[in-house]
Amino acid sequence: MTRPAPTSFIFPQILNSPDFLRYLNPKSQPSSISSMDAVNSLDVVDETTSFQVKSFFESAPLLKDADSISGKLTQFIHQNFSLPGPRRVVCVTSGGTTVPLEQRCVRYIDNFSSGHRGATSTEYFLKSGYSVIFLYRRGTCQPYCRSLPDDPLLECFKLTSDSSIQVHESHAEAVKSAISGHHDAVSGGYLLKLPFTTIFEYLQILRLIATSMKILGPNAMFYLAAAVSDFYVPWESMAVHKIQSASGPLDMRLAQVPKMLAVLRKEWAPTAFCVSFKLETDKDILLEKADNALKKYQMHAVVANELSTRKEVVILVTKCGKVSVYRENDQSVVESPLIKLLVEKHSTYIRDTNA
Amino acid sequence: MTRPAPTSFIFPQILNSPDFLRYLNPKSQPSSISSMDAVNSLDVVDETTSFQVKSFFESAPLLKDADSISGKLTQFIHQNFSLPGPRRVVCVTSGGTTVPLEQRCVRYIDNFSSGHRGATSTEYFLKSGYSVIFLYRRGTCQPYCRSLPDDPLLECFKLTSDSSIQVHESHAEAVKSAISGHHDAVSGGYLLKLPFTTIFEYLQILRLIATSMKILGPNAMFYLAAAVSDFYVPWESMAVHKIQSASGPLDMRLAQVPKMLAVLRKEWAPTAFCVSFKLETDKDILLEKADNALKKYQMHAVVANELSTRKEVVILVTKCGKVSVYRENDQSVVESPLIKLLVEKHSTYIRDTNA
Repeated sequence: MTRPAPTSFIFPQILNSPDFLRYLNPKSQPSSISSMDAVNSLDVVDETTSFQVKSFFESAPLLKDADSISGKLTQFIHQNFSLPGPRRVVCVTSGGTTVPLEQRCVRYIDNFSSGHRGATSTEYFLKSGYSVIFLYRRGTCQPYCRSLPDDPLLECFKLTSDSSIQVHESHAEAVKSAISGHHDAVSGGYLLKLPFTTIFEYLQILRLIATSMKILGPNAMFYLAAAVSDFYVPWESMAVHKIQSASGPLDMRLAQVPKMLAVLRKEWAPTAFCVSFKLETDKDILLEKADNALKKYQMHAVVANELSTRKEVVILVTKCGKVSVYRENDQSVVESPLIKLLVEKHSTYIRDTNA
Repeated sequence: MTRPAPTSFIFPQILNSPDFLRYLNPKSQPSSISSMDAVNSLDVVDETTSFQVKSFFESAPLLKDADSISGKLTQFIHQNFSLPGPRRVVCVTSGGTTVPLEQRCVRYIDNFSSGHRGATSTEYFLKSGYSVIFLYRRGTCQPYCRSLPDDPLLECFKLTSDSSIQVHESHAEAVKSAISGHHDAVSGGYLLKLPFTTIFEYLQILRLIATSMKILGPNAMFYLAAAVSDFYVPWESMAVHKIQSASGPLDMRLAQVPKMLAVLRKEWAPTAFCVSFKLETDKDILLEKADNALKKYQMHAVVANELSTRKEVVILVTKCGKVSVYRENDQSVVESPLIKLLVEKHSTYIRDTNA
């Protein structure tokens, strides 16, 4: 038996292009941020990143419904901005992104994430008086729904003998709190839900959100809990049709997704309080990477998760040090003390920035 | 700017192994199938395939709940086998499989499939008097639920002023028929639902199902609508921890999933009526591949789908020729005439086999 030659497949030619244009104009640096949190453009967004970001967005497929999303965002922000206070707004991202391997998408690479962290955190932010823009992966966990079974319609309801729909007693409280919690937040104008599937949709919508939140200054927060792919296939170098399995193994080369945290912090949302996440399966790597993210992207806080213990404990890394945050007991969730701590840090940030 | 060297990553060393053991024992060929449908082991399962199948199952992570799944299957088959008739049983597979890229799975490759084809076909098989083993990807469309919105709990229900749960009038019929259709089929013993996520789970459960359906002889049908990955990373050559993004592009080599259709047809279910699916985005390739599958794996029928028109028309390919099957109108589904046609072909097969 001879081993067939590998099928060569994807090469991101865009990275070979000699067209090393500058995307970033260093002169456009905003002046309204405090010196303590000022971002040095050369540290954060270097030439390579600028070029990669430009390439990424230029090669991305056009975002469907961009106008409708912008309209919803404008209305939501305006409504919250005009409240007395003014109200704080957090953008919570949630769930994994997909990376299409074919333009007419049959296959893709996915980052696992149930979306529980983002959905639960959204509830606690709302409880703390924040308005929330919930940027979530389609099909992942929704706020107020985490106590429900996987398939609530088929598992929580029954038909009575007179053919009316009834909720099973055991699920009645969970179903009621899901429906009422969700309804109150959305109809009250405190919760805006925006879905995505691919990495292209995610980053394009995140940019729209950041742009529309600029007006909020330090009252804006980004809580970036989504599991974003590190690698992607540039749209233009992607197979148009389904990749044929032919007779050998498949070789793939994936390009790195540009470090968008740097661009978010520097360009899209220079005055917002930014919290990013690190998830690793190896504990030794985790804290080192969290520290790096804090420094390299000048995040205000990094939440470090280890895959196996992420529901019981997270480590909050800030320039003041590292704090382990534990859930109180088996019935509670780690998001409760975590959001409380972040709200305090955000308050300090707002006070310092406005000082 | 220099382009960093690629990060080399996964090599399925198992394929380099000199251990070319035979898995297949040609003497074990079953004798109960009619000459018309007899399978020549050398045509269908060659040495390469046998070796690959053995490698695949040996390297697969242990199936959780294997005993519980076997128990459910035995009970379900026994119950249907002892009915007067006896009752026909179809295994419908549905949704896409995932291929983990890391053992502690954060990233995976996924095959897109909503599961609408499998869920809808299940309804029509049940309507035609079949019992159904529904092997579905977690989170995909469920039988009787296709008229519901994506998030039925939050979109179909409301709380009344006295805090009781009520279904919105516009969704009342869809919700009722989902709950009652589903409940009747499951509690009546006509529908057994078994979920999977990865390609490893899918193929291990499929093998269990096939083994337990052998007793049904030609009354068994396999309707393999799941979108199964063509490529995978053997478990033992997989990264244990999350792949680090480091500083360059990512090179991956994926191994081909063995041609399990051949093994299903030859070894697992030699007397069953077997229907496989081909989905392509390129029409020219589609019919050629459907023809190949019919001949190479000796399927009794192949359903050929083109991605863009798959809801309006499919082509049923059998040794008698090709038939285009259209849905009747915008309100109907193509699964209605498709299942009707397949039930007829299955009847002919049972008559010929028993003759």
